[in-house]
Amino acid sequence: MDKKVITIIGSGMMGSALAFPARENGNEVNIVGTHLDREIIENCIENNRHLKFDRDFPEGVKFYQIEDLDKALKNVDFIICGVSSFGVDWWRDFILPKLPENVPVVSVTKGLMNKEDGKLITYLDIWGEKLKELNKNIPLCAIGGPCTSYELVAHDQTYVNFCGKDKEALKMIKEAMETDYYHIGLSEDIVGVESAVALKNGYALGVALTIGVNQKNFKDDTLHFNSQAAVFTEAVKEMQKLLTLQNAGSLDNLALGVGDLYVTVYGGRTRLIGILLGKGLNIDEAKNELNGVTLESLVVAERVAKALRIKAEKGEADLKDYPLLLHIDDIITKKLSVNIPWNEFI
Amino acid sequence: MDKKVITIIGSGMMGSALAFPARENGNEVNIVGTHLDREIIENCIENNRHLKFDRDFPEGVKFYQIEDLDKALKNVDFIICGVSSFGVDWWRDFILPKLPENVPVVSVTKGLMNKEDGKLITYLDIWGEKLKELNKNIPLCAIGGPCTSYELVAHDQTYVNFCGKDKEALKMIKEAMETDYYHIGLSEDIVGVESAVALKNGYALGVALTIGVNQKNFKDDTLHFNSQAAVFTEAVKEMQKLLTLQNAGSLDNLALGVGDLYVTVYGGRTRLIGILLGKGLNIDEAKNELNGVTLESLVVAERVAKALRIKAEKGEADLKDYPLLLHIDDIITKKLSVNIPWNEFI
Repeated sequence: MDKKVITIIGSGMMGSALAFPARENGNEVNIVGTHLDREIIENCIENNRHLKFDRDFPEGVKFYQIEDLDKALKNVDFIICGVSSFGVDWWRDFILPKLPENVPVVSVTKGLMNKEDGKLITYLDIWGEKLKELNKNIPLCAIGGPCTSYELVAHDQTYVNFCGKDKEALKMIKEAMETDYYHIGLSEDIVGVESAVALKNGYALGVALTIGVNQKNFKDDTLHFNSQAAVFTEAVKEMQKLLTLQNAGSLDNLALGVGDLYVTVYGGRTRLIGILLGKGLNIDEAKNELNGVTLESLVVAERVAKALRIKAEKGEADLKDYPLLLHIDDIITKKLSVNIPWNEFI
Repeated sequence: MDKKVITIIGSGMMGSALAFPARENGNEVNIVGTHLDREIIENCIENNRHLKFDRDFPEGVKFYQIEDLDKALKNVDFIICGVSSFGVDWWRDFILPKLPENVPVVSVTKGLMNKEDGKLITYLDIWGEKLKELNKNIPLCAIGGPCTSYELVAHDQTYVNFCGKDKEALKMIKEAMETDYYHIGLSEDIVGVESAVALKNGYALGVALTIGVNQKNFKDDTLHFNSQAAVFTEAVKEMQKLLTLQNAGSLDNLALGVGDLYVTVYGGRTRLIGILLGKGLNIDEAKNELNGVTLESLVVAERVAKALRIKAEKGEADLKDYPLLLHIDDIITKKLSVNIPWNEFI
């Protein structure tokens, strides 16, 4: 296999985890921290290990502070965007102008942005507009699908989807990244993949609410899967209806989103805040418990609900189809207590 | 609300659990054990508690051995069939002839039966044929959806679907059974609901395999959700394709099956045998560990795969669409080792 030069910009957990399959395949791998990642990069240089991982990077990964971005981009074959959804504007305004022409970018950033007319666009749409302004050609691709970074680092068998319009770029990136544990499907449906994996964040919060409700009601740590499964069922229905509104209602998209929902219920802070809310805290109290961290799941749920209400006003959607999402939105924006609308599930 | 007389025949966990919402709603509730349930019924009579439950039945449930079936059927408004799929023939041959005309039966029995031509029929189909023979009218209904019995007993919020062709019967049963924790949706698509909840049994085994594989590979108890989610994604795709083959590819059916898959991965013996197989035992060794118990999940996976291979020969299905199911079938029928076919997932 032809070895590539791969530069990861943004040294969060997900971006950094991708260095493992990338480097193990023999590619040259550079990781560049953002201005917020200074300490992470210092530690990587010193110990060849990410602060949040429990094992070293494969030998030979190179680490750069943001000032050295140019050095890290020398001879690069493709770039991985590893920023979170809170870095989308920064990526657009500060990074895109500095990237070399014609070198593909593949993004791990998950989310959707709502427009005033009720449209939900992807981050790739946002960056594509900027590229048009800059009169610059960069093939934009994205990664979607169930993958937690620490399990990727542990070499758990993982299956994700790479999506993009440029088939050659996708093929090149897949060839460089695929290993015997990191399996990659391809899709040209950017809106579908990106919508599916964004939506699951909001719905994972919904499933997690029931865990908290039951911990409160039953005062024990048994997990009470009936409730979780009931909300999961409703989430599948609502996700498919939302995907259809995005003109992306294929089985592949739904299955990807549902698999990603499955893994997200078990991971990280979305589960945590869902449980806190389910236990009876209001959104401000729950956020306080998590030190005021702004969560992608909250942002996406709020944006999608906002877009949906506008679509409903225009007669393009029926709010009755989305009782779970609207309840989640009420919890977030109106600070309501959790009260799963069982009788509105149909 | 009009109180009903409800008779549950078969005192397994699921049938018996339904006595809780039924009796709490003030209905008269009779539980009749099969010839295999003798000890359970004795214990119920003595202690008002099922051997496998950790709390008493609500006051006033009446218990009968099978010889007293007639007494338990006096004035009955509807009957709950609580036998497992291994009791389907017994129900057809010994119970149906004894049941009163025009009194609806609602069944918790989950499964499908394969015919020689590759058709997969529901247990309600099998019983319907017998009723035709007997020239007897009994509205047949079924319960599908995510519900573990012990969580229902604990009053976990639960949402299931009752399906049947007789809308009046469904409405009456729903009204009698629904509580503030047991929520009931209605569907006329018997084949869809029954297929969805049968299929998930086979696929739950598939997800559980990865838990075992990872326990073997990583020698730890972390759960490695990436693998589970990847197989879950594939399961969603294959289930939808199978539902479509059953002319039952509606979103409601898929969502129900997927929610039920979610809960089944966490419950009971299907998970257990999946983990044993994933750890490297062959099917005989794994069954031995479980004391040779025959599992519904194994039966359904084998039957569906058999039917699918016949359909493929007839050009009605493409085996390439079902790599996961066929691998599960190979594990069961050819005693192959687990080797998840990642590269066949598309």
